[in-house]
Amino acid sequence: MQESWASLQERIGELESLQEISGVLSWDQQTMMPAGGAAARGRHLALVGAMSHDKLVDAAVGDWLSDLEAHRKQLSPVQVASVRKIRRMHERARRVPTSLVREMAEAGSTGFAAWHEAKKTANFALFQPSLTRIVDLVRQTAACHGPAAHPYDHLLEEYDPGSTVAELQPMFDRLGAELTPFVQAVTAAPAAPRLGLDLDVAGIQALGKRVIAALGFRSEDGRLDESEHPFTVGICAHDVRLTTHSYADDLLGSLTGTIHECGHGLYEQGLPDDMPRTGVATAAGMGLHESQSRFWENVIGRSRPFFTWLTPLVQAQWPGLDVDAERLFRAANRVERSFVRIKADEATYNLHIILRFKLELALMSGDLEVAELPQAWDALSEELLGVRPPDATQGLLQDVHWSGGYFGYFPSYTIGNLYAAGFARAMEDDLPQMWQQVEEGNFAPVLGWLRDKVHSRGHLADAPTIFRQAVGDRDPVADLMAHLRERQG
Amino acid sequence: MQESWASLQERIGELESLQEISGVLSWDQQTMMPAGGAAARGRHLALVGAMSHDKLVDAAVGDWLSDLEAHRKQLSPVQVASVRKIRRMHERARRVPTSLVREMAEAGSTGFAAWHEAKKTANFALFQPSLTRIVDLVRQTAACHGPAAHPYDHLLEEYDPGSTVAELQPMFDRLGAELTPFVQAVTAAPAAPRLGLDLDVAGIQALGKRVIAALGFRSEDGRLDESEHPFTVGICAHDVRLTTHSYADDLLGSLTGTIHECGHGLYEQGLPDDMPRTGVATAAGMGLHESQSRFWENVIGRSRPFFTWLTPLVQAQWPGLDVDAERLFRAANRVERSFVRIKADEATYNLHIILRFKLELALMSGDLEVAELPQAWDALSEELLGVRPPDATQGLLQDVHWSGGYFGYFPSYTIGNLYAAGFARAMEDDLPQMWQQVEEGNFAPVLGWLRDKVHSRGHLADAPTIFRQAVGDRDPVADLMAHLRERQG
Repeated sequence: MQESWASLQERIGELESLQEISGVLSWDQQTMMPAGGAAARGRHLALVGAMSHDKLVDAAVGDWLSDLEAHRKQLSPVQVASVRKIRRMHERARRVPTSLVREMAEAGSTGFAAWHEAKKTANFALFQPSLTRIVDLVRQTAACHGPAAHPYDHLLEEYDPGSTVAELQPMFDRLGAELTPFVQAVTAAPAAPRLGLDLDVAGIQALGKRVIAALGFRSEDGRLDESEHPFTVGICAHDVRLTTHSYADDLLGSLTGTIHECGHGLYEQGLPDDMPRTGVATAAGMGLHESQSRFWENVIGRSRPFFTWLTPLVQAQWPGLDVDAERLFRAANRVERSFVRIKADEATYNLHIILRFKLELALMSGDLEVAELPQAWDALSEELLGVRPPDATQGLLQDVHWSGGYFGYFPSYTIGNLYAAGFARAMEDDLPQMWQQVEEGNFAPVLGWLRDKVHSRGHLADAPTIFRQAVGDRDPVADLMAHLRERQG
Repeated sequence: MQESWASLQERIGELESLQEISGVLSWDQQTMMPAGGAAARGRHLALVGAMSHDKLVDAAVGDWLSDLEAHRKQLSPVQVASVRKIRRMHERARRVPTSLVREMAEAGSTGFAAWHEAKKTANFALFQPSLTRIVDLVRQTAACHGPAAHPYDHLLEEYDPGSTVAELQPMFDRLGAELTPFVQAVTAAPAAPRLGLDLDVAGIQALGKRVIAALGFRSEDGRLDESEHPFTVGICAHDVRLTTHSYADDLLGSLTGTIHECGHGLYEQGLPDDMPRTGVATAAGMGLHESQSRFWENVIGRSRPFFTWLTPLVQAQWPGLDVDAERLFRAANRVERSFVRIKADEATYNLHIILRFKLELALMSGDLEVAELPQAWDALSEELLGVRPPDATQGLLQDVHWSGGYFGYFPSYTIGNLYAAGFARAMEDDLPQMWQQVEEGNFAPVLGWLRDKVHSRGHLADAPTIFRQAVGDRDPVADLMAHLRERQG
């Protein structure tokens, strides 16, 4: 048993290193790599992926796991969590034949090109054959994992282990039923004015760095760069890299983007570093990850107390600039019906996700075929958001996810918003001074709460368990609606 | 035979990718990585190194090679070169037991720390036990490779395959015999005045970028950053990364450093990209690599025509600055006896290398023991350079190489200078207009000559062969001395 654990740990260590190396290669690809390096980089990532896969599906891993599972009572809690997680990864990787993985990679590659062209010309027909193939392969992949309450559960497990359709669907339905009339009511009144400032990018970047340092991002264990699309790569807890995109004419959009990534980064920097080579010193899923970025971006970063703290910093950066906390707050919380998810405000955002979730479920259950998608998209958009997209570019071609076969990922965003709302309310109970502290720029108590209840738990349990242990029996749908109602006065 | 070649190519492709990944990881480590990432990065590099080693020593590689060697007559020239190179790498890697490799790595790691402390306190005694152990391990490593004309040949093969003591020693002896009186004569006269300017770092960086673009460095296939110590990483011919260190008070040192790295980079960008997965689309050795950096730094970058071209660019960067081409030329070619190799001028530099070469030979043959090193160093310094270092920090502790076990590397620097001198003279014969073209900022003919005679050859032959094919039967010692005599008027 000791030997099996030692062998397993050595293997997990290699898998962790390969994962980290992949992180460095991806980060470099999107920030530093000269254009000419693209072809070689594709080969590098493919090789690291193939080597990881080989090391994971190796039959010896199964033997070590079986031996440890047979001695479950002698295992520590960390060992139990580790064996559980690696067993899940090992089985998931073994169940899908290499040929199907390769077909999916190829379909994703040609699918991306077709999607890109279709989006450019607002012509879904150009993407339809690729998407039909991709949906077929995703269905096949789900089928490899055997029977389940819903085939979509197998897709959820890839991104949000522990989440199921049976639990998500009623929550998403309730949330949609409340959000649609709420957005209707809010948008009946005139929208708050935009900020409409034109500032210097260097100043926006400097302010962003000040803000993330104040929130608790450790600069010795990370960095912040510019990239086309903001993202975060946590190579390890001591090397976490954020990127943002600073726009001269969008101070608030740039700052909230930076704070969003910082939220991801604070999670990564807070993961336990005292359990190496166990596989569980990681995030517990994409939904929980998103809860951290959304919490900092929305709950904290769009709050009145936050802008009260921020305003003097803005004025120090641009002396004489005519801004006050209330104007920043109102502009940051402007609500507007929109077609495009990534431009959506905090209130309408989840309706975009619910739309995709419904369509993905129907595609996976076989109730919907790709040919019927355009009509289904527009009808659901009308029903949920009250608007029909003027063309496919602003409709079902807007997101890249499906072109790469990433079905099951979209729910993470709304799971994140629900978790964030639950954390916020529980935190207010635990830290009665928190808003006063935020107003003073003292974010340490808030970060401390998240460190304790979320970050330090790594992947010792699945996200739904971590959430429940942190907030008790709160109803996150009610919490999220209460939060949105308060924000919109 | 076809099958063996296909299998070998697949394996070489993996080895090339791992080598390239290692390059990205190292570059990132020295330029972008936050301090906290150091421990994880050590694990990443160790894992990639171990995986490369396993893939190289694999017995199957030996079988494929044997099959191909048995069908030598059917192989193309590229295949012949590939089989020859991989056989050499495979055998070298197999001959040294893993335990010895690990001992060497550990001795290098503790040796570096001991050297660092010893250098700081100018106390060789602190480094002596480590160095004794390292020299012992290097001797053991050389012995693993079996009999040779000189055990040092096995060390040379690691860095400069094709070079031997039998060929180098007489060249180095002749060069030393000419250089010592030459440096004495030159330094008898007063040294040229230093430039003594204090400029802005951003301006020096901007000028450096203009210069490397003019020399032919393709920006779409590379980049230039700042780092503590300048270096070049060629990930592939389309992703070549230079670093430099720009000093406000040292325009010439900064620029020549940038041009030196650019020379390495031009070689990497010029390597053949039409023979992937053969292992021979690489540099042919460190000496040939160094010839490219030294050629651009010294032959071109310290020449009168170069400064004639550069002067208007300097004046455009800093309007009103009082410089002229002659002043730049003289300051860039100032000769001074010195204790420290990396600060040495073009003339004395090779005497520093000859000193180290003699000591390394004696250590490897057993004629010298580590305990006798301090005395031997000082005596040789007196004999060759005419000066005795005031302390060990400026004497035998000045270089990091020995602390990591890198014996056999130093000769590359002088091999590079000799090759560069030979190339320059041959090029003058082939391109009678070259100095006129350099003066006009037209570096394309010079680069074209190097592309044709050196870069495009990759590692299809060993460096001494590539050199001979490029320059015929020229005497590089005579060429180097002629070059230095001309420079010093």
